[in-house]
Amino acid sequence: MRTGPNQDDVRRHNLGSLLRYVHVHGATSRAELTTRLGLNRSTIGALTADLIGAGLVSEAAPRETGRAGRPSLVVRPESGRVYAYALSIEVDRLRAARVGLGGRILEQYEAERPPGMSAGEAIRPLARFVATMRSGVPDGARCVGSGVAVAGMVRRADGMVRLAPTIGWVEEPVGADLTSELGQYGRLSVGNHSDVCALAEHARGAAVGSDNVIYLYGDVGVGAGIVAGGRRITGHGGYGGEVGHMVVNPYGRPCSCGSRGCWETEIGEHALLRLAGRADRSGRDEVLAVVDAAMRGDSQAQHALRQVGDWIGFGVGNLINIFNPEVVIFGGTLRDVYLGAAAQIRSRLNAIGLPACREQVRLRTPELGTDAALIGAAELAFDHLLDDPLVS
Amino acid sequence: MRTGPNQDDVRRHNLGSLLRYVHVHGATSRAELTTRLGLNRSTIGALTADLIGAGLVSEAAPRETGRAGRPSLVVRPESGRVYAYALSIEVDRLRAARVGLGGRILEQYEAERPPGMSAGEAIRPLARFVATMRSGVPDGARCVGSGVAVAGMVRRADGMVRLAPTIGWVEEPVGADLTSELGQYGRLSVGNHSDVCALAEHARGAAVGSDNVIYLYGDVGVGAGIVAGGRRITGHGGYGGEVGHMVVNPYGRPCSCGSRGCWETEIGEHALLRLAGRADRSGRDEVLAVVDAAMRGDSQAQHALRQVGDWIGFGVGNLINIFNPEVVIFGGTLRDVYLGAAAQIRSRLNAIGLPACREQVRLRTPELGTDAALIGAAELAFDHLLDDPLVS
Repeated sequence: MRTGPNQDDVRRHNLGSLLRYVHVHGATSRAELTTRLGLNRSTIGALTADLIGAGLVSEAAPRETGRAGRPSLVVRPESGRVYAYALSIEVDRLRAARVGLGGRILEQYEAERPPGMSAGEAIRPLARFVATMRSGVPDGARCVGSGVAVAGMVRRADGMVRLAPTIGWVEEPVGADLTSELGQYGRLSVGNHSDVCALAEHARGAAVGSDNVIYLYGDVGVGAGIVAGGRRITGHGGYGGEVGHMVVNPYGRPCSCGSRGCWETEIGEHALLRLAGRADRSGRDEVLAVVDAAMRGDSQAQHALRQVGDWIGFGVGNLINIFNPEVVIFGGTLRDVYLGAAAQIRSRLNAIGLPACREQVRLRTPELGTDAALIGAAELAFDHLLDDPLVS
Repeated sequence: MRTGPNQDDVRRHNLGSLLRYVHVHGATSRAELTTRLGLNRSTIGALTADLIGAGLVSEAAPRETGRAGRPSLVVRPESGRVYAYALSIEVDRLRAARVGLGGRILEQYEAERPPGMSAGEAIRPLARFVATMRSGVPDGARCVGSGVAVAGMVRRADGMVRLAPTIGWVEEPVGADLTSELGQYGRLSVGNHSDVCALAEHARGAAVGSDNVIYLYGDVGVGAGIVAGGRRITGHGGYGGEVGHMVVNPYGRPCSCGSRGCWETEIGEHALLRLAGRADRSGRDEVLAVVDAAMRGDSQAQHALRQVGDWIGFGVGNLINIFNPEVVIFGGTLRDVYLGAAAQIRSRLNAIGLPACREQVRLRTPELGTDAALIGAAELAFDHLLDDPLVS
C-alpha cells in the first residue's frame, strides 16, 4: 500500500524529478523544465536553487538563443563534481569507471579476467582501480555510492551472486565483500549485467522513449534486461530475465545450468563456433571471424550463422509473444551475429511471433557499446540520489 | 517524464489511496487507515468526509471493539450504491455482472456461447443482460463504467480484438461496438481474460500480498496474466502474456496461430483429451472426467495426465526463469490438470527452473473461480474511479 505524500514528500519528489530530468537529458533551460515537469516558474526556480545549494546542478546563461527577449537560464548536472563508481564483472573482463551525474564516464580502467579467476581474486584489481581513481578526484567532488554489474544471478537484497555459470561462481558474497573493500565510498548496489545494460540503453541509448524493451545480451551465456511499462523487471528475488535458460530445444544439448536445450546452448558463442567448425576457439574476435568468413562466402560459416540465427529468431519470437515489446536490442556478441543473420532472425521470428506482437517490434543494436554496463551500474548508485536528492 | 504534483494532485492521490484501500480491503477503521496510508488523523477525517460527500464510502461505529476507549469509526465502500458492469466473453460462455465497489458481485447472468457465434451475435445477449440489470438498479445508485474481459488479444487503445483463435474472432471492434451499445452507462474498457483474472487474484485471491505473480489460464487455449513489481504487464500494444504461443516443441503439432509446437498444443484441453483417447470430446467436464479416470487407475488417462503435466512443468520452468515470480496460479481447466499432475509438474519444473528462481516459487490454484473474470473486468472500470475519485 502506498503512503500518501505530505509537503516534504512533494518537495522531495519534485527535486528528484528535476534532477532526474537533467541527469537523463543533460543541460535543460528553465523554460523547458517548466513545461516538462508541469510546475510553475517560481517552483522550478526554488527547486533549482535547492539543488545548486546541494552542489548537484549549476546554472548559467545559454551561449546564444537566436531569439529575442531575455534567455531562459540553463540547468546542468554537476557531472564533474558528483559521481559514482561503476564496476563491471564480465566473463573475460573486469571494468571500473568513475561516472559523473548525467551519465558521463569521467575515467575508466579495465583488465582481463582470466578463466577461473575467483571472486576473491577479482575484487582486488577492482579495489585497486577504485583506489587509483580516488587518488585523482578533484577537491570538493562528491561520491554518491557505487554500482556493480555482474554477469550472473544476483540477489537484490544483498548483492549475493547466487550463480554465474559463465564466470564459474556459485554463492559468492560479492556485495558484502566489495562493501567491506569500498564501503568508505558510500552505499554499494549490485545488479545483473544485462539488467543494468537495459537501464542504460533505455535512458540514453537505443531504446530512449520506449517503455517496453528487451535488451538481449550474449557471449558464452545469454541473458536479458527487461523493461515493461517503463520499469525494469527484476522478479521476486532479483533473478528475472534469465532468458538464456528458457528451454527451446527439449532434445538439445546439456547446459551448464544442469538442464538441456537451453536457449544459450543454441545461440551462445560455443554453439556458433562449434557449428562453424571452430569448437576449439572462443571469444568475441572468433565470433567476428565467423561472421566475416560468412560474408566472404565460407559455406560452413554461413551454415553456422543461419542455424544460430534461426534459433535467435525462435527465442525472440517467444519473448515478443510473452512481452509484446516495442524494441529488442541485441548486445554482446549477439550484436555481431544479428548483423550477420538479420534476415534469418526476422524470418523465424515472423513465423513464431503473433502478428499483433511482431508487427510493431523494432530490432536494434546497442548505442552505448561496452559502456552500457558501466553507465548502467552507475545508475544503480544514482538511483538512491535521485529518489531523495538532498538527503542521500 | 512524470509531472510534479501540486496541491490538487496530492489531494487526488490521497483520495484515491484511501478509496483504493477500502475497495481492496473492505471495511477499515479510521485508526488503521491512518497507519496504513501514513497520513495524520485530521487528513483521514477530511478525505473520508469528501468521499462520503461523493457517495463513495459510508462511515459507522464498529459493532463492538472489545477495547476500552472511544472506538475508531469504520469506513466502508458503498458497494450497493457504486457499481460497474462487468462482461466476460469466454470460449463457451458469455457472462455479465453488476459489481459493487469493493469487488462484490451484486448480480450476475450467463449464457452459453455456441461455437461459431460471431462478435456481433455475442454483443446482443450481453447488451440484454445489462439492460435487465439496469432496470433493477436501486434509485440513486451510480454506475462508474464497464469493463470487458475477452479471451483473446485486445488492443489496449480501443478494445479492438485483434485475434481470439479459440473464439474464432479476428479484428473484431468489440470495444467500439459495446461502447455504442452501452455507452450511456459510462466509459468502457476492454482487457484480456487472463490479465483481468490476474488482477482479481492479485487484489483479492490467491496472490494477495505478492508483487510478482503469473496467473496461467487454460481451456482450449492458454494465456497468462502477469504482475511484475506489483503492476500488470501488458506490453506495448496490450498484447503481452501470450505464453500459450511460446513454442516449446519445435517438432510439435501445428497450432491455430499458424506456428507449430506452441505450449497450448501440448497442454491445452485438446492435447489432454487426444492423449486420453477422447479426441472427439471437449469442454471442462471432459477434462475433469480424464482427471477422475486417472485417479481411478485408468492407465491411458494417467499417461495423458503425466504427459501434459510434464509439458506444463516445462513451460512454467521457462517462465520462472524469465520472471522469477513468487506465485504461479493455475486457472481454468489447468487448475484441474494441476491438481491431478502436481508431482509431475513440480518434477519437470525443478529440472528446468534455476535454483534461485524455483526455490521460492509457490504453485497455487485460484481462489475466485470463474468470478475472477467478472471481478477483474470490473477492476478495469473501477481503476478510472480510483485514479481520481471525485471527477470520474
